[in-house]
Amino acid sequence: MPRRERTLADLGEPALIRRIARRAGHPASAVWPKAIGDDAAILRPRKNEDLVLSTDAQVEGTHFRFERESPRAIGRRALAVNLSDLAAMGARPVGALLSLCAPPELALSVFDGMVAGFVDESRRFDCPLVGGNLSKARECSLTVTVVGRVKRGHALRREGLRLGDLLFVTGELGAAALARLRADRSGGQLRRIPTARIEAGLALAQIPQVRACIDLSDGLASDLSQLLECTGLGAEIDPGSLPSPRGFTRSCVSLGLDATTLQAAGGEDYELLFGLSPTNEWADPRRLGKRLGVSVSRIGHVVRRSGIRGLPKIPTAHHF
Amino acid sequence: MPRRERTLADLGEPALIRRIARRAGHPASAVWPKAIGDDAAILRPRKNEDLVLSTDAQVEGTHFRFERESPRAIGRRALAVNLSDLAAMGARPVGALLSLCAPPELALSVFDGMVAGFVDESRRFDCPLVGGNLSKARECSLTVTVVGRVKRGHALRREGLRLGDLLFVTGELGAAALARLRADRSGGQLRRIPTARIEAGLALAQIPQVRACIDLSDGLASDLSQLLECTGLGAEIDPGSLPSPRGFTRSCVSLGLDATTLQAAGGEDYELLFGLSPTNEWADPRRLGKRLGVSVSRIGHVVRRSGIRGLPKIPTAHHF
Repeated sequence: MPRRERTLADLGEPALIRRIARRAGHPASAVWPKAIGDDAAILRPRKNEDLVLSTDAQVEGTHFRFERESPRAIGRRALAVNLSDLAAMGARPVGALLSLCAPPELALSVFDGMVAGFVDESRRFDCPLVGGNLSKARECSLTVTVVGRVKRGHALRREGLRLGDLLFVTGELGAAALARLRADRSGGQLRRIPTARIEAGLALAQIPQVRACIDLSDGLASDLSQLLECTGLGAEIDPGSLPSPRGFTRSCVSLGLDATTLQAAGGEDYELLFGLSPTNEWADPRRLGKRLGVSVSRIGHVVRRSGIRGLPKIPTAHHF
Repeated sequence: MPRRERTLADLGEPALIRRIARRAGHPASAVWPKAIGDDAAILRPRKNEDLVLSTDAQVEGTHFRFERESPRAIGRRALAVNLSDLAAMGARPVGALLSLCAPPELALSVFDGMVAGFVDESRRFDCPLVGGNLSKARECSLTVTVVGRVKRGHALRREGLRLGDLLFVTGELGAAALARLRADRSGGQLRRIPTARIEAGLALAQIPQVRACIDLSDGLASDLSQLLECTGLGAEIDPGSLPSPRGFTRSCVSLGLDATTLQAAGGEDYELLFGLSPTNEWADPRRLGKRLGVSVSRIGHVVRRSGIRGLPKIPTAHHF
C-alpha cells in the first residue's frame, strides 16, 4: 500500500517555520543578531546608504500552476521577480521576507521544494531570508518583500527621461513569452526562470546621467509607457534592433506568431530598460555591455511627439 | 433597473494603483522623494538607528469574512496586526507596503473600503503606505510589510527571560476572542479592531532590563511558550490576575465558556507581554502603566521548572 504523502496539516505551523529556518540557515551579518522567529527582523543600515523596498506576489493560477512547473522553480521565481525590482533601482540585495499562503492539504514535498528554490535564489544573490509569515489559504501564494541598499541619493529612478535620450535594454527580449506560449500549447513544463540583472543595475547606478530605469516585467511596450508617463515625450523604436534569442524569429513563425509583437507585449523578460544622453561616454552598446557584464542593445530614442512608434499596437493586457 | 456595481476588472490595474496612491497621498519625509509607482520605495535611514521589518497576511476565509466585517475594518486590521509586531520590538513605524490579492469580480466599493481602512490606520500611526502590489487571485488577501525604526541596539527581543522575572501584560485579555465567538454564534458583525501598543512599546524600549517582549496574537498560553522556548525555564501564572474587560466573566458564563480558558487561548488581543526583573524600579504595575500610557497587570513570574502553571491546559490551535 503506498504511503500517504505528508501535508502541511501533519506538521503544523511551528514545525513548518522551524523547517524554513533550518533550510535558510543563519542570515548574513547585515541582519542582527538573528532573524527568523522574532516579531520582526532587525537591520542595521550602513552610513551614507539609502534602503529600497519592494514587494511582489506570485499567486497560484495567476502567476504559476503546479502542473506546469516544479515547486523549486516557483520558489526561485518568487524571489527573482522581486530582486529584479532591486536591480532596476541599482540596489544591492540586503534581505527578503517571505509570506507563504497555502492550503493545509498541500504536500509537504511541494512546500519543501518551494522553500528550497527560494533559498537557492537567495544564496545566489546573497539576499538572506530574514523573516516571513505562514497562513492558511485556499490557494497557494508567495508574497515577497525585498530590501536593498544603494549609495545615498544614487538609486535609479523611473523618471527623468529627456528629449533625445537613447534607449537601451540588457539581454534579449521575447524568450520568456515564447517559453510560456509553448508550455501553454503543448501542456509541457515551463522551465524558464528570470535572472535579476543585479550586477548590471549596480554598474548602471555608478554611471552619472543614467536616466529612468525600469525592469521589463509587463512587456517592453507597457514598461516603456511607464517611463514616458508624465514626461509628455514619446519614443521611436527600431523594431529591427530588438535583441532576439537565437532562432527566435523562426520559432515564432512556426507557431504562427509575430516576433516583434511577442517581444513588445510578451513580458516577463526581467531585463533592464533605461535612457542615456547621446553625449554620455557610455552611450555605446558594446562598451556599456562590457561594463554591465551583459549584452546591451540600443533600441531607439526619445522624441517630442508623445506615444511610441515602431512597435505594433498592443492592447494593454493587465491582470484585472 | 439597478445599475451593476463596478468591479476591479472594470478599472484595470493602473487605474487601481492610481486610486490607492490618491487615497494614500504623499508619504512623509522618511521616504524620499516619492513612493508609490516606482520599482521600489526609497528610505533614508537615520543615524544610530536600526530598522525592523515584519510581514503578516490577512486571508479571506482564514482571518476575515466579508459577510461578517466591513471592508474598512478588514483594511485597518491588516495594518494593525503588523504594527503590533513593531510595538513588540519597541519600534516607531516608518512605512508600510501592501500587497493586495483579489478576484477581478470584487466590487470596487469593497476594494475602496479596504484601502480606506488601511490608510486610516496608517495615518493614525504615522506609517505611510510606501509601496505595494496588486495581483489577481481567487480569494482576497492583504499581505503587509511594515518597517520601523529603533535606537541602535535597543530593539525589544523575544529572548532573555531570567529566573525570577516578573511577567506583565498591557491592557485586557479575552475581549477579542469573546467578540469573535459572539459573532460566530449570532452571525452578527465583528466590530473589534486591535490597537497596536506602539507608544507602550516605545516606552518599554527606553527602560533598561525589560526582557523578552512579544505581542499576544496567538493567545497568552501560546505566546508565553514562545518567550520560554530555549530558556529551559517555566512560568507560574496567577489566573486571578489576568486583566478582564468589564462584564467579561458574566458574558463568558452566559455563553457557557470558561473565562480563564478564553483569556489564555483566545488570541488576537495584540497586547504586549514582557518580563522585568523584580528589582527593577519600574516593576510596579501602576507606576509602569503611567509610563506606558496603558494599564499594566502583573500576571505571574518565571520559575525554574519548565512548563506553564496556573493556566488551563490548551490544545495548541494553529492554522495548519
